Amino acid sequence: MAESVSGRELRSTVREDGTLTLSLARVTLDPPGPGEVIVAVEAAPINPSDLGLLVGPADPGSAVPGGSADAPTLTLTIPPDRRGAVAARLGQSLPVGNEGAGTVIAAGPDVEDLVGKTVGMIGGAMFADHRKLRASDCIVLKDGQTAADGAAMFVNPLTALGFVETMRAEGHRALVNTAAASILGQQLNRICLADGIPLVNVVRSPEQAQLLRDAGATHVVDTSADNFREALKAAVAESGATIAFDAIGGGTLGGQILAAMEAAASKDAAYSRYGSDMFKQLYIYGMLDPGPTIINRSFGFAWSVGGWLLFPFLQKAGAEVAGRLRARVRDELTTTFATRYSRTIGLAEALQPEVFAAYERKATGEKFLIDPRR
Amino acid sequence: MAESVSGRELRSTVREDGTLTLSLARVTLDPPGPGEVIVAVEAAPINPSDLGLLVGPADPGSAVPGGSADAPTLTLTIPPDRRGAVAARLGQSLPVGNEGAGTVIAAGPDVEDLVGKTVGMIGGAMFADHRKLRASDCIVLKDGQTAADGAAMFVNPLTALGFVETMRAEGHRALVNTAAASILGQQLNRICLADGIPLVNVVRSPEQAQLLRDAGATHVVDTSADNFREALKAAVAESGATIAFDAIGGGTLGGQILAAMEAAASKDAAYSRYGSDMFKQLYIYGMLDPGPTIINRSFGFAWSVGGWLLFPFLQKAGAEVAGRLRARVRDELTTTFATRYSRTIGLAEALQPEVFAAYERKATGEKFLIDPRR
Repeated sequence: MAESVSGRELRSTVREDGTLTLSLARVTLDPPGPGEVIVAVEAAPINPSDLGLLVGPADPGSAVPGGSADAPTLTLTIPPDRRGAVAARLGQSLPVGNEGAGTVIAAGPDVEDLVGKTVGMIGGAMFADHRKLRASDCIVLKDGQTAADGAAMFVNPLTALGFVETMRAEGHRALVNTAAASILGQQLNRICLADGIPLVNVVRSPEQAQLLRDAGATHVVDTSADNFREALKAAVAESGATIAFDAIGGGTLGGQILAAMEAAASKDAAYSRYGSDMFKQLYIYGMLDPGPTIINRSFGFAWSVGGWLLFPFLQKAGAEVAGRLRARVRDELTTTFATRYSRTIGLAEALQPEVFAAYERKATGEKFLIDPRR
Repeated sequence: MAESVSGRELRSTVREDGTLTLSLARVTLDPPGPGEVIVAVEAAPINPSDLGLLVGPADPGSAVPGGSADAPTLTLTIPPDRRGAVAARLGQSLPVGNEGAGTVIAAGPDVEDLVGKTVGMIGGAMFADHRKLRASDCIVLKDGQTAADGAAMFVNPLTALGFVETMRAEGHRALVNTAAASILGQQLNRICLADGIPLVNVVRSPEQAQLLRDAGATHVVDTSADNFREALKAAVAESGATIAFDAIGGGTLGGQILAAMEAAASKDAAYSRYGSDMFKQLYIYGMLDPGPTIINRSFGFAWSVGGWLLFPFLQKAGAEVAGRLRARVRDELTTTFATRYSRTIGLAEALQPEVFAAYERKATGEKFLIDPRR
């Protein structure tokens, strides 16, 4: 009989005194049941979406190390005016890590053929030595593909493909993406180039613009450029984009994109004080700027701004679409969806103040991978 | 044979020098063709939606009378920073007035039975002595109903009914309305009471709250009250509202309503940093505050904010729904959809500075009717 497996699991806990503490809990996993596997985690990326749970609204600059060498902790302070946002998680020791990859070390009787296989995984609690999960939440990698290759095969690839699916399902033919030099943005650019879909890439610096142009991007606009508004209008008009995906959330950029779409739509139309009847959609999928979304409604009434999340999208799209997207990710894992990591760290290292400061910055081009074996 | 008809038509014109001028143009209408009628206008309400075209972004305090007794004008200045919003209507002499009522004085050969009938009308250019339009854009009033009774039988009644239709079509069971003491809001309150639909009425003063309570409203919250946030949360939770219609547009109120919905949805749910999966909808249908919409995204990702307009709604809903709604308005014209006017003015009076200042204020309880015969 299979034995239970014991190991560490990274946790984030908010307490009533306004602190947030990262720690390594010791957890024991019972043997896998039918349809279940236990995976020895070998690679798990630190995604922006993980930082939301890991750090939440705490002040990153306030990090103070504690605990012991065996059981280190890192404690941060949450500014008083932001504590309301985490009231619902008070006292809960929450595991972190949306996705990862590793080797199957135990499996239920009906999925025993998976033992020894390298798999990519989705489902949370991946910043851990071991993860027990349903075999259906794993994808077996091809021969020669490493755990690092498969560590990030869910969140970014399925999100990028999800944008294109959403665009088509809602009747649009071209799209805008912001923070477009991100790994997600680069993958989206490769998808759109391969599929012949016009994409407007909005970036925040000349270096990011160059990165995308070097990758063959057709439309790149830089918010730091003097002529940003005009360049955005021109690119939106040329591409025909009427849907946008925004990773930033706060500020006026989303509304400016809608205004650019409206300018293109009403160019040769008769005046209507209600604006054009061309429907314009903005989806917010990230919160690089957690401040308020400021919408200057200068684009009539045919518009919508809403939230976009991967899991509700997949649920709504159904099993057939999800299966098709997963198959494409597996086929193009080391090309379209290749992810390069700037640094690999261990579980305990993630709690060291200077390492924490480095991955918390979310700098473009920097991407951290956790390998619990280190 | 029918002869052509000549009369006055109120016009609004923006010029390149940044002025907006109201004037009375002399127009001649050719005899009606098949399916057409000419109506002598006897009553046309000044709706907030008319003021958007009539006054636009001009400074109301800048009004200067001009012209002659026969052909008066009223000229206003548009502040430089708002001129971009009207660039598309430069130099166009635009007729005004969404709806009205009057007596049919001429008709095409196939609709001759309408001559002499009192009808309500929709279609613009109603601030005029005469209006030629399709008979299908008219509703014949019942015996005993006056032109004043039927002057406002389209915009407010169909909008209020449209909110309820939209709520049901999108799977919601209760709704929120802002500026709820407006004529539209009062009509919506009567519809919801009659149909057993929970409605949260958001108003801006104790007097408005009393007005709605006197009309039997169940949930009334006052933004000027100290406990507004708590009262809003309680009313939204009690009603179960997950869709809101907002006449104000600018500021933070819309986002506060979404946050109240989220608080109700996540009350007994496990913590998720992505928020609840209860979908929350906010529709902006007016712009009492033309400033930016400020959305503090404290309510996860399952939300949407968009524009709502009557005509696109009717078009999408289809002829059957539109016919059903029109029939209800006609049946309940002097009860559910009764509109009381505080003052009746003539066409030329609308161009007098002190009269203009009075109807431009959009004060609750004040409602102006134009009767071109005066």
